[in-house]
Amino acid sequence: MQTTPIETDVVIIGAGPAGLFAVFELGLLDLKAHLIDILDRPGGQCTELYPEKPIYDIPALPVVTGQKLVDQLMEQIKPFNPTFHFGEMAAGCTKLPDGRWKLTTDTGKELIAPVIVIAAGAGSFVPKRPPIPGIEAYEGSSVHYAVRKMESFRDKSVLIAGGGDSALDWTLNLAPIAKSLTLVHHRDGFRAQAHSVNQMRELQAAGKINFHVASVKSLHGADGQLHAATLLHHDKSEHQIDVDAFLPFFGLTIKLGPIAEFGIGLHENLIPVDTAKFESEQPGIFGIGDIITYPGKLKLILSGFHEAALMAQAAFHICRPNEKLRFQYTTSSSNLQKKLGV
Amino acid sequence: MQTTPIETDVVIIGAGPAGLFAVFELGLLDLKAHLIDILDRPGGQCTELYPEKPIYDIPALPVVTGQKLVDQLMEQIKPFNPTFHFGEMAAGCTKLPDGRWKLTTDTGKELIAPVIVIAAGAGSFVPKRPPIPGIEAYEGSSVHYAVRKMESFRDKSVLIAGGGDSALDWTLNLAPIAKSLTLVHHRDGFRAQAHSVNQMRELQAAGKINFHVASVKSLHGADGQLHAATLLHHDKSEHQIDVDAFLPFFGLTIKLGPIAEFGIGLHENLIPVDTAKFESEQPGIFGIGDIITYPGKLKLILSGFHEAALMAQAAFHICRPNEKLRFQYTTSSSNLQKKLGV
Repeated sequence: MQTTPIETDVVIIGAGPAGLFAVFELGLLDLKAHLIDILDRPGGQCTELYPEKPIYDIPALPVVTGQKLVDQLMEQIKPFNPTFHFGEMAAGCTKLPDGRWKLTTDTGKELIAPVIVIAAGAGSFVPKRPPIPGIEAYEGSSVHYAVRKMESFRDKSVLIAGGGDSALDWTLNLAPIAKSLTLVHHRDGFRAQAHSVNQMRELQAAGKINFHVASVKSLHGADGQLHAATLLHHDKSEHQIDVDAFLPFFGLTIKLGPIAEFGIGLHENLIPVDTAKFESEQPGIFGIGDIITYPGKLKLILSGFHEAALMAQAAFHICRPNEKLRFQYTTSSSNLQKKLGV
Repeated sequence: MQTTPIETDVVIIGAGPAGLFAVFELGLLDLKAHLIDILDRPGGQCTELYPEKPIYDIPALPVVTGQKLVDQLMEQIKPFNPTFHFGEMAAGCTKLPDGRWKLTTDTGKELIAPVIVIAAGAGSFVPKRPPIPGIEAYEGSSVHYAVRKMESFRDKSVLIAGGGDSALDWTLNLAPIAKSLTLVHHRDGFRAQAHSVNQMRELQAAGKINFHVASVKSLHGADGQLHAATLLHHDKSEHQIDVDAFLPFFGLTIKLGPIAEFGIGLHENLIPVDTAKFESEQPGIFGIGDIITYPGKLKLILSGFHEAALMAQAAFHICRPNEKLRFQYTTSSSNLQKKLGV
């Protein structure tokens, strides 16, 4: 997909708490932000890893869940109406002749801005690859970790592995259009919505899908095209089934991803920044939150907020080189209150 | 007043948001804190200057009043049970031979700790001195900006100036015990509770106090002892009244106070600190919040929170030189959750 590049003030990579609060601090300075996140919703680790778990060290919030924290940040940044690009990964970043940065996502989208803010936490959440020998050769062609277009599975022999909501949901969604659908899971129980499990059992009872308590031992095919898979049962017996497409849903893991290639002088997978502007060694590329390093750095959400505030001041001078910045307080500035719509 | 010195881990000067949150971050590391504040309650500028005003830039709190912010911080630090010394000012700070600091308050209290944290904001809230020539000569003897002991005004000719709650409250409280009580205010209206104003009007009608729309032009006395004051009326007429004690209540102003003498290398009334530990040039004396300066510093409450967190780590190594610090998260550490009582 090639589209007209989007031009904006600031592109923020990562929609976790630091990235979200950056929208607020940039917004107070009239800077418009676009956010990119590989996940399909805001919150990063907070909503992906501990949405229901209480956090106790957000200042003035004695106890708040990961999801609630993100909900409140989303409410706080609403007046600034940021644009979210979910389900996309920052794939490349190059400097344009006019000094701005062009950021490309893995879907081919292009964003041009004088300031890039990397708020990518520990990196991108990427699907866990199952330990099946040679699986890499089929990835992208016959092995998929997400379903982008259901139609591409029509009349295929589909194998799904996993016992969570993703495995169950796609079993239910693809069963009607696939030629055949086989679900494998290492035990006869699921970590998924009861309703989905019941529906799956009904399809199984009706002979519309196959379910095996088994693991995928090996894949068979050629030139990236799967033909079959060998399933290993608990009793050590094996059997082979026809497979055109394999969808493993074994959860997510975190990888730094293409940011490593941005030329920002990574140190042990962290971006070294100064503590006045939180700028990387590339002028105009800033870092905030868990992905940065500086003397004394703590990977605390509250530090990401501070880093976002100081970054925003520096970003202003890059985005508006001819304007003067007057420091104002939300409590007393009617100008800021107008921006906040209060 | 001379008392046995109090020994603790950390003495925090200033109970505003930064000082309060420091208690939390220190508490997570098992460090015990005492707080000193010239005001009679926690919150500093937040509760003194804008208790009812909304603040919009506390992360994840889209709108919160100064008072509510402080209430929630007080709730958050409750598990660590800090000791507050209200109505006292840090008066002196000296290094002991064992390397710890001895902090003295203006009431003579002594606190001994390896770590001092200055979280004094813009300084101490001190009463505004009215522009009356020579008033300094009577301060502490005949001129008082606060009432510490009502009995010392028994049978005295008391003059009170001001139109706010303090002026009205002390008029009502001292009228029954004073020999005579005169209230002066520059207009015939008050910024005080209606109930207090009504009571004052009743006392005036009953001839139990005198009220004049006037200002205090000059004071007369000798050796620090007042004898009389000249009142200036709106029609430019003057008249003299007998006065033994004068209580001006013209609100509070902020002054840096004795901290300036702590030898911490103040720069334009701010404490220069590093951004890794937030330590001043005196080892063991830290600064957080609005009173510090470093490249990029913004006087934002959210920055005070970050500074408190990093300071606490450094304070730990001073207070517990032989212990190892393991960084933990409140979300996942059962050890921290136990300390928080959850």
